[in-house]
Amino acid sequence: MCRWLAYSGSPILLEELLYKPTHSLIDQSLHSRLGVETTNGDGFGVGWYTENGEPPARFRGVGPAWNDQNLRELGRSVRSPLFLAHIRASTGSPVQQSNSHPFRHERWLWLHNGMIRDFAAMRRDLTLAVDSSLFPFIGGSTDSELMFYLALTFGLREEPIAAVEKMAGFVEAVGEYHGVIDPLQMTLATTDGERLWAFRYSSTRVSRSLYYSTDLDTLRAMYPDNANLRRLSDGTRIVVSEPLVDLAGAWQPVPEGSYGIIQEGSDTLGAFQPRIP
Amino acid sequence: MCRWLAYSGSPILLEELLYKPTHSLIDQSLHSRLGVETTNGDGFGVGWYTENGEPPARFRGVGPAWNDQNLRELGRSVRSPLFLAHIRASTGSPVQQSNSHPFRHERWLWLHNGMIRDFAAMRRDLTLAVDSSLFPFIGGSTDSELMFYLALTFGLREEPIAAVEKMAGFVEAVGEYHGVIDPLQMTLATTDGERLWAFRYSSTRVSRSLYYSTDLDTLRAMYPDNANLRRLSDGTRIVVSEPLVDLAGAWQPVPEGSYGIIQEGSDTLGAFQPRIP
Amino acid sequence: MCRWLAYSGSPILLEELLYKPTHSLIDQSLHSRLGVETTNGDGFGVGWYTENGEPPARFRGVGPAWNDQNLRELGRSVRSPLFLAHIRASTGSPVQQSNSHPFRHERWLWLHNGMIRDFAAMRRDLTLAVDSSLFPFIGGSTDSELMFYLALTFGLREEPIAAVEKMAGFVEAVGEYHGVIDPLQMTLATTDGERLWAFRYSSTRVSRSLYYSTDLDTLRAMYPDNANLRRLSDGTRIVVSEPLVDLAGAWQPVPEGSYGIIQEGSDTLGAFQPRIP
Amino acid sequence: MCRWLAYSGSPILLEELLYKPTHSLIDQSLHSRLGVETTNGDGFGVGWYTENGEPPARFRGVGPAWNDQNLRELGRSVRSPLFLAHIRASTGSPVQQSNSHPFRHERWLWLHNGMIRDFAAMRRDLTLAVDSSLFPFIGGSTDSELMFYLALTFGLREEPIAAVEKMAGFVEAVGEYHGVIDPLQMTLATTDGERLWAFRYSSTRVSRSLYYSTDLDTLRAMYPDNANLRRLSDGTRIVVSEPLVDLAGAWQPVPEGSYGIIQEGSDTLGAFQPRIP
Repeated sequence: MCRWLAYSGSPILLEELLYKPTHSLIDQSLHSRLGVETTNGDGFGVGWYTENGEPPARFRGVGPAWNDQNLRELGRSVRSPLFLAHIRASTGSPVQQSNSHPFRHERWLWLHNGMIRDFAAMRRDLTLAVDSSLFPFIGGSTDSELMFYLALTFGLREEPIAAVEKMAGFVEAVGEYHGVIDPLQMTLATTDGERLWAFRYSSTRVSRSLYYSTDLDTLRAMYPDNANLRRLSDGTRIVVSEPLVDLAGAWQPVPEGSYGIIQEGSDTLGAFQPRIP
Repeated sequence: MCRWLAYSGSPILLEELLYKPTHSLIDQSLHSRLGVETTNGDGFGVGWYTENGEPPARFRGVGPAWNDQNLRELGRSVRSPLFLAHIRASTGSPVQQSNSHPFRHERWLWLHNGMIRDFAAMRRDLTLAVDSSLFPFIGGSTDSELMFYLALTFGLREEPIAAVEKMAGFVEAVGEYHGVIDPLQMTLATTDGERLWAFRYSSTRVSRSLYYSTDLDTLRAMYPDNANLRRLSDGTRIVVSEPLVDLAGAWQPVPEGSYGIIQEGSDTLGAFQPRIP
Repeated sequence: MCRWLAYSGSPILLEELLYKPTHSLIDQSLHSRLGVETTNGDGFGVGWYTENGEPPARFRGVGPAWNDQNLRELGRSVRSPLFLAHIRASTGSPVQQSNSHPFRHERWLWLHNGMIRDFAAMRRDLTLAVDSSLFPFIGGSTDSELMFYLALTFGLREEPIAAVEKMAGFVEAVGEYHGVIDPLQMTLATTDGERLWAFRYSSTRVSRSLYYSTDLDTLRAMYPDNANLRRLSDGTRIVVSEPLVDLAGAWQPVPEGSYGIIQEGSDTLGAFQPRIP
Repeated sequence: MCRWLAYSGSPILLEELLYKPTHSLIDQSLHSRLGVETTNGDGFGVGWYTENGEPPARFRGVGPAWNDQNLRELGRSVRSPLFLAHIRASTGSPVQQSNSHPFRHERWLWLHNGMIRDFAAMRRDLTLAVDSSLFPFIGGSTDSELMFYLALTFGLREEPIAAVEKMAGFVEAVGEYHGVIDPLQMTLATTDGERLWAFRYSSTRVSRSLYYSTDLDTLRAMYPDNANLRRLSDGTRIVVSEPLVDLAGAWQPVPEGSYGIIQEGSDTLGAFQPRIP
């Protein structure tokens, strides 16, 4: 199990979310409150877009985030309008850079908290379903990355919601075939650098925690003196495994079995329904 | 702050203490109960002697112990009658192999839990007091290693108890000079491969937890059916930051401000008194 | 491309081959003479059996072997009658522990120098051919490990020579299907802890260098004053990517397209012939 | 021994010098032509300034530069008008992040190729000479970092040339005291984010190689069709351990026993003369 965050909005230094909040992601690496594990020390990663339209860059480590000096340096020197960050608590796959999130394919980034239950038993069937043109890009050995390549196989780049629903449906079908009860547990974020999709779903319908930040107009009205809120543009939004600060009214739970889209214009929330590909 | 253990007795596989007990040292790396920090993920180390009289060997890592595959392999392949193991929670010094315990000089090993308060301010004066013949062997940048080289400077190889008392007295004197209140906090273990010394002391007289195992005769009488206890020789003894198993009567707290010697014949416990070198 | 060695004979400390010879394996990590690359700094590993019949233990690293302190410590404390060691120069797969040789399955170890050409294109078909009971044990992403699991699929545990010939034949067939010219380049060693098999083969019939040590009777007659040779038992044998010392007559090239078996009784050399599984 | 480069001029992506030239710094990590060692695989580092006037940021690793994925990502996402990069071949100090160049103090960066001969013997006296206000900032155990703190002690921030001359003179005096012949071997670069100083000196007067790029006006006249040269501003200058590309006339050796200053206006070259502090 892991913790993650996704940010979209006014360009900010990574450290604004990774280090500075009371209950920042780095703090969560040692003291997660809502995670299945309190410690998330099995590697970490951050992927970010810049304003010049380049493909996203990544920095991924294999040690704990809390003692990584390079991440700290990066946090205070990289400014981004759209980034994902992840701290890992391995559920079995080795701790190695190729297993650290976010995963990347072309302009897409992907990160995951949760697991495919009994992954060892299901891994072969899931692997074989990855399109042969995508297969060579599988770099690591996690369930999370495989979910990404399955979603790409099922059309992530064309119809993201449907593709993730097909991925989930496929995982559940393979699980059923192998007699695995409640095979899927996930919160997900993925982005193409323009829009950001977040998902919360699990076979048991009791998914890992996920929150999104209240829209800024509302927040500014609630906290007229908060300078941080004034600096951010209207569309700025954060999605997190658990709240970064204790600010009443600032965080809304993503409903069980749903997805959200963060995009120019108005954000969207909808019901998530696994389907057979 | 850190957690550690020291073992002396019948040769056993390292994994018998590192992995197998309910609350093994590896379990403590994620879930310490008595430590100042619950997580000890900033490196680890083990130093061991063999029955053939060679100088001790070491294995030290910079990641968390809980996910280190090499340590697991070592645990099931190295058998030793005398070994020290340590899991680190850095109090500021970098996470690097040269800062992982145990430290070694000739046939001696040394490990420490605790800290020298305001070490940055005191480090120079402490460093200058290390004998010039020993200075080149300082490999890392921790307070713990410096305490070792100070103890060596003050005669660890000749009179271990007195040397550690001088080291503690010197640290407190330098602390006083720099206006540092209660500068020393320590539990220590050191060994020359024959005897094992353990220390529990702090300037505040409220030291970190330390326990030693009850003598085996007594334990066997209490638990006549315990096969593990029957396998071990009479003189076998374990010193630990916190109990490895919940076995009533098996662990005795090392009294505040005291030292213990584990040796052939009968073990010794005495009062620890810092002194000016 | 990589360098490796395999040892079978009188129990010796690992350092006797890893560090002490003039042109030891560690020296080859910086200054290989016969390798395609002079530097082999992309990880390393050693796997060893002990005399007590336990499954083999491993130590694998991701940095260069030449500056690894833990390997040095291990070298002077582990004694083994049968061990494999490997230094890696990646041909593209990530540098991570799960890609460091030797690979292990049950009591078997496996290491490889060479490559499957255009592996990215062929990887999916090769992966699908691994038996579903073995698939979950694939831990890394190298061609070398996949060759191991293919050989296991084709019967390595029952008929080692035939299984490796089938693996090679299968790789060449898949290569042909994908239009890859001369897909296979390999020197291999594998062992079950009793016998040791070495292979030298490539599609081009110009394989990477491989040598075995002359039998000890002959060597002792040639060098009656050499104390090292006197200490070793008659059956002692070393297989290496390149000679460890410049001792005239000590090293015999493994012929192109052949295999050798090192075993109790007399060793065997035979022709290697890829075959369709 | 090591290899390094320093860049000052039009903001460019780090990869323009780290990866793209035929004989880039990353290429030199495997295949140095002019270094004492052909392989520089014992860690690396890059320190850079941005145009917004922040203190410099750093990225430092402990593995070889050639296989570091994070460095590659950084190379294509960080743009800087002034940066230093270094690849290390350890002369004995441990391979750890705190020993990777460039070293940093406040706004200053520092990197070094060369060595203090018999450093173990001289280290204590050199350490004691560091000003007590600077002592706590010594983070690693290299001769190179100690030279930096000695230079800072002797006034680097006020009179850079004189301070480095005093540092060199002091090292030579301490060497003489300890009977070390020709104690100092160095090429150095240091910068405060505005100006860049480079030094080439050794006690033997046969120093490691060092080159600076020919001024751009001259180069453009020589190569009127070279698009790369047209993109760069007039004051752009590179200092390197060895040429990055084979472009006749592009590289000038820094004379033995001299320093250069790269700065707004005209650059300066002068004689370097160690002096007693």
